[in-house]
Amino acid sequence: MKVSIVGATGYTGEELLRILSGHPEAEVTFLTSESQTGGSILSAYPHLKHFYDKKLVSIDNIQEIAEQSDAIFIGLPHGHAMEVGKKVLPFGKKIIDLGADYRFTDHKVYEQWYKVAHTHPEAKAVYGLPELYRQDIKQADIIGNPGCYTTASILALAPLVKYGLIELDTIIIDAKSGISGAGRGLKLNSHFSEAFENMQAYNIGGHRHTPEIEQVLSDLAETPITLSFSPHLIPIARGILSTCYAQLKSGVKPEQVTEAFESMYADEYFVRLFGLGGYPATKNTRGSNFCDLGWHIDSRTGRVVVVSAIDNLVKGAAGQAVQNMNIVFGLPENTGLKQAPLYP
Amino acid sequence: MKVSIVGATGYTGEELLRILSGHPEAEVTFLTSESQTGGSILSAYPHLKHFYDKKLVSIDNIQEIAEQSDAIFIGLPHGHAMEVGKKVLPFGKKIIDLGADYRFTDHKVYEQWYKVAHTHPEAKAVYGLPELYRQDIKQADIIGNPGCYTTASILALAPLVKYGLIELDTIIIDAKSGISGAGRGLKLNSHFSEAFENMQAYNIGGHRHTPEIEQVLSDLAETPITLSFSPHLIPIARGILSTCYAQLKSGVKPEQVTEAFESMYADEYFVRLFGLGGYPATKNTRGSNFCDLGWHIDSRTGRVVVVSAIDNLVKGAAGQAVQNMNIVFGLPENTGLKQAPLYP
Amino acid sequence: MKVSIVGATGYTGEELLRILSGHPEAEVTFLTSESQTGGSILSAYPHLKHFYDKKLVSIDNIQEIAEQSDAIFIGLPHGHAMEVGKKVLPFGKKIIDLGADYRFTDHKVYEQWYKVAHTHPEAKAVYGLPELYRQDIKQADIIGNPGCYTTASILALAPLVKYGLIELDTIIIDAKSGISGAGRGLKLNSHFSEAFENMQAYNIGGHRHTPEIEQVLSDLAETPITLSFSPHLIPIARGILSTCYAQLKSGVKPEQVTEAFESMYADEYFVRLFGLGGYPATKNTRGSNFCDLGWHIDSRTGRVVVVSAIDNLVKGAAGQAVQNMNIVFGLPENTGLKQAPLYP
Amino acid sequence: MKVSIVGATGYTGEELLRILSGHPEAEVTFLTSESQTGGSILSAYPHLKHFYDKKLVSIDNIQEIAEQSDAIFIGLPHGHAMEVGKKVLPFGKKIIDLGADYRFTDHKVYEQWYKVAHTHPEAKAVYGLPELYRQDIKQADIIGNPGCYTTASILALAPLVKYGLIELDTIIIDAKSGISGAGRGLKLNSHFSEAFENMQAYNIGGHRHTPEIEQVLSDLAETPITLSFSPHLIPIARGILSTCYAQLKSGVKPEQVTEAFESMYADEYFVRLFGLGGYPATKNTRGSNFCDLGWHIDSRTGRVVVVSAIDNLVKGAAGQAVQNMNIVFGLPENTGLKQAPLYP
Repeated sequence: MKVSIVGATGYTGEELLRILSGHPEAEVTFLTSESQTGGSILSAYPHLKHFYDKKLVSIDNIQEIAEQSDAIFIGLPHGHAMEVGKKVLPFGKKIIDLGADYRFTDHKVYEQWYKVAHTHPEAKAVYGLPELYRQDIKQADIIGNPGCYTTASILALAPLVKYGLIELDTIIIDAKSGISGAGRGLKLNSHFSEAFENMQAYNIGGHRHTPEIEQVLSDLAETPITLSFSPHLIPIARGILSTCYAQLKSGVKPEQVTEAFESMYADEYFVRLFGLGGYPATKNTRGSNFCDLGWHIDSRTGRVVVVSAIDNLVKGAAGQAVQNMNIVFGLPENTGLKQAPLYP
Repeated sequence: MKVSIVGATGYTGEELLRILSGHPEAEVTFLTSESQTGGSILSAYPHLKHFYDKKLVSIDNIQEIAEQSDAIFIGLPHGHAMEVGKKVLPFGKKIIDLGADYRFTDHKVYEQWYKVAHTHPEAKAVYGLPELYRQDIKQADIIGNPGCYTTASILALAPLVKYGLIELDTIIIDAKSGISGAGRGLKLNSHFSEAFENMQAYNIGGHRHTPEIEQVLSDLAETPITLSFSPHLIPIARGILSTCYAQLKSGVKPEQVTEAFESMYADEYFVRLFGLGGYPATKNTRGSNFCDLGWHIDSRTGRVVVVSAIDNLVKGAAGQAVQNMNIVFGLPENTGLKQAPLYP
Repeated sequence: MKVSIVGATGYTGEELLRILSGHPEAEVTFLTSESQTGGSILSAYPHLKHFYDKKLVSIDNIQEIAEQSDAIFIGLPHGHAMEVGKKVLPFGKKIIDLGADYRFTDHKVYEQWYKVAHTHPEAKAVYGLPELYRQDIKQADIIGNPGCYTTASILALAPLVKYGLIELDTIIIDAKSGISGAGRGLKLNSHFSEAFENMQAYNIGGHRHTPEIEQVLSDLAETPITLSFSPHLIPIARGILSTCYAQLKSGVKPEQVTEAFESMYADEYFVRLFGLGGYPATKNTRGSNFCDLGWHIDSRTGRVVVVSAIDNLVKGAAGQAVQNMNIVFGLPENTGLKQAPLYP
Repeated sequence: MKVSIVGATGYTGEELLRILSGHPEAEVTFLTSESQTGGSILSAYPHLKHFYDKKLVSIDNIQEIAEQSDAIFIGLPHGHAMEVGKKVLPFGKKIIDLGADYRFTDHKVYEQWYKVAHTHPEAKAVYGLPELYRQDIKQADIIGNPGCYTTASILALAPLVKYGLIELDTIIIDAKSGISGAGRGLKLNSHFSEAFENMQAYNIGGHRHTPEIEQVLSDLAETPITLSFSPHLIPIARGILSTCYAQLKSGVKPEQVTEAFESMYADEYFVRLFGLGGYPATKNTRGSNFCDLGWHIDSRTGRVVVVSAIDNLVKGAAGQAVQNMNIVFGLPENTGLKQAPLYP
């Protein structure tokens, strides 16, 4: 199986390379980069020495890339993947986009939040969250791989929504992310001396992962959900912790909450349940494709609080993309994704 | 003015020493430590070289200490300050307790959350949050200095409660703290390799700062308030970020929220308003006694989100204690507390 | 192949478990812990959920453990492995000790630096640095796995010593280590708030890895070498950077230095050469068994400066131990050790 | 006393503002910035709210600035301060340059290491290390404030050189710096996710602070000294640790080393001696103008090892600049510089 990465020098591209280096069935064919065309991937990422020494090519070669690849991962900023998608699709190759272009069922929502026109609305893209859409992914040609905050938050709330345990208009998500989520592009917020020993919120009520979470939970609830989402920057490189709040419906018991989680995730390899009263920690997932979940009943207020932890670059990006690739090609879903987390 | 510190070798004791070293009116007289009696404070904290070289004495000398001090700061674990208080009070000296023993107006609440009997219920203690209880503090003999989470959370929510802008049963506080909040005592959660590049929640719905926040907000609202409080551990040494959520009452406008903050804090030196849409960052307060506030209207859900940032060891502990001391002794409130934050 | 770990709850034990979980030929049989006997390894290390759920047994079962294991890793403090060694050896099983007990050819040196009597001097132990002692390791029953500082420093200096390029009495090693090197035991130096945003040297001229480095370099030089070694604590969890200085012999050219490194390590999978002027970074090795090397000629002073980087828990401990196990059992040396480093 | 800062938005400019906010005699008059002209200093540094709210002006106003200031601090990249110096000097105002332009007695050395022509060679600049050049600083019109690595390294080695205790051709300095030393300009090495949990050396044998250290030590020794200097990047914001090695002259005793330090620094407020066997830690100096020193005799090799710790932005930059200002204006040297370090 031959795979290529369009936009290989960002952190999601790098992380795909790390994971694919241990994948028994995938062979990396092309890597593109516009800023470093002609250079080696090793100049960008010396830690990959002994694993890769490929030349970076321009996206201008997309036709050749499409011809010689079975699957193409796209790690470009939103708005650019659609152009790649239109060119690759005619070759009958699989596309897994790690950006936002193919995540929305309603393109108007995409256009409203991302402020660009959707130029590939005819694409039949599938939302790539395997724990919820596995059957659709199997048949998909284009997969919109979910956002990092999104993955952590949806997996935390899905059982409560699916089994009707909470008041749907009371959902609040307080999410904390490591700095790698902001990518490799230089900016003051990601400057070491600024971010170090610092914490802050940003984009409260306006982060673009909000409509993505609402789309999936609304789909599960079969009714529209609007929720509050507040992202925060935390001075670690990898990891998202999502603390999710909702009012329990009157009379719901703790055991029902636990049953909902156990029913929904009983067969999910990548979801690890830490139970009622359990406290997931981001470091327990570092470098792995796991999403760890723990839930709490705040009996004084009648709320349920679910905490989820993932590695934003793995289950929140590249790992989930490889999981999707495995599904599409009929491989065991955890092929190449069995590494234990790196702790401490 | 002579001041002594009972329990000087914890982080709050050390921070009192740092701040008092720059206070023009206070002279440090006695420092106690049971674990390091007879040693020098410099063995515990070499960074204080050139500022102090006092011998640590045992609390057994409390009578002599009380006689020779105008004010006594107590930095002991809860349950121990009451014993000190009973002995010092007869000498007519001021007590500022940085623990929980003197924070509660209803001792039953204290006993319920702290699982110890309150042995000094006759003490007329005042809750030491100057921005709300300044007039009472002026007259007080015993001051219960607020908790770190508490200070950050109350200052964020007080204007909304006082001016009746929110539904009181919808308050959720998601708070993040640096590791120094857990003190200098060794434990696995504070072990460097465990905490580093890690995040986790703890004590959801059960943290002891919860009833303290409820007591003060209920006092402001003149009706009992029950709320959800979720603390988190973040791998920095200093800093608390508190993200507070509530449903706005129907019809409340953004300007009213802004007016509430501006009215309440117009004359408060230590509260810095970053306005509607503002994002406080913990590092902007590091080493200072400021509480920075920003507020946000999530118009899609009708919620208000307030973010507050403090240095947990300063405005959340030792700085606020010195602020209280200044009030009690009729000094300008920011005496010895004018240092700019340490950034970056 | 059945392997057991005596002393499984320290960081080297944990790291062995992480690596062995991806080893295709090894099956973990027994895990011992005296402090947590009867508990599950998951209580100590929840991140291993889905990989292990073994009960921790006491070392009192060493006979049963020896009978049912092909190899036994020992992760105990120095002085304790000898007792295990004496009991296991009669069963004809392989021992790989990650502590210091079996590292020294001259037991007097061990006794002098470690202040305990060597009680198993008749053991024919081999020093487990494969790049230098591979042939001996193949035949060994007991392997003394090298220390973390040691591995980084020896691999940096060995080519210069072997090819006679430096003045042997001018060697200075300035080494920097992440905090995990100090283990999981609680102490003030490893307390998060103390170590964070801090750096310090310790044990200058007196660290116990000094005689180990001297033993191996003297062996290579065929003459006794005495050198200066200064370790430092750096606030990261994983990683050692060793900066090694020596005076070049008169007339030695930069090309000769480069040739020495290339000759010595041409066939070594785990040594990655970053060349003359190259700068290894610890993060490029994180989670992997690589040792990265770069060298520099300071022509103004006639010195050579070699920089080496490793992950102290992998090539500096558990990874090298598995590498030794592979050699002993005739497996390809990088079996189970092919993971790419975790970056960023 | 009116002072202005040319180049106020870098970290040294910001740190000057922090320190000057607590200086009883200095009033900040003008702040310049070319990139943010017309904006407020609060946009660049919100943590200074309540302390400053000045508009940033262009350096084009240098004549007005010179007229209305008693002293001018320059925080510009090398090569630019000379142009400012030439314009300000005729006004008879004091100049303290925090860059390299005025540090060298031999302009050829400057031109060789900095690769630009020195355009103001007639300036009678004084090297601003008060502990060595206090008498000259008192009379100076232009002060070349020392570099951060330089300050830490010279203060560590000066007593050994001055009292003739070491072989001058054996000096090796292994220095470690926090990331703030690289400034606020965005670059990949200072990007959070790259620097975090990472360590690396850079510019071995070629860093521009090398000739500065050599100039001062040669001046002390009254003979030219050439030495090895290796800087390293450590993932903390503030702090430099400098580990300095040299061969003791034959027969030199430990007491002589201790005497040299005590003689030289007996009256120096900002140099704190931690003695023979002492271990300075960068965090003990954080936010303060102290340089902490400890020294060690490696009797096995006959070497002396001195460790020094400073806050690179204070004693390594802005604090030392204010110390120089105090000297020039006849104020007590520690005016405005008496803050205790911020720990933990």
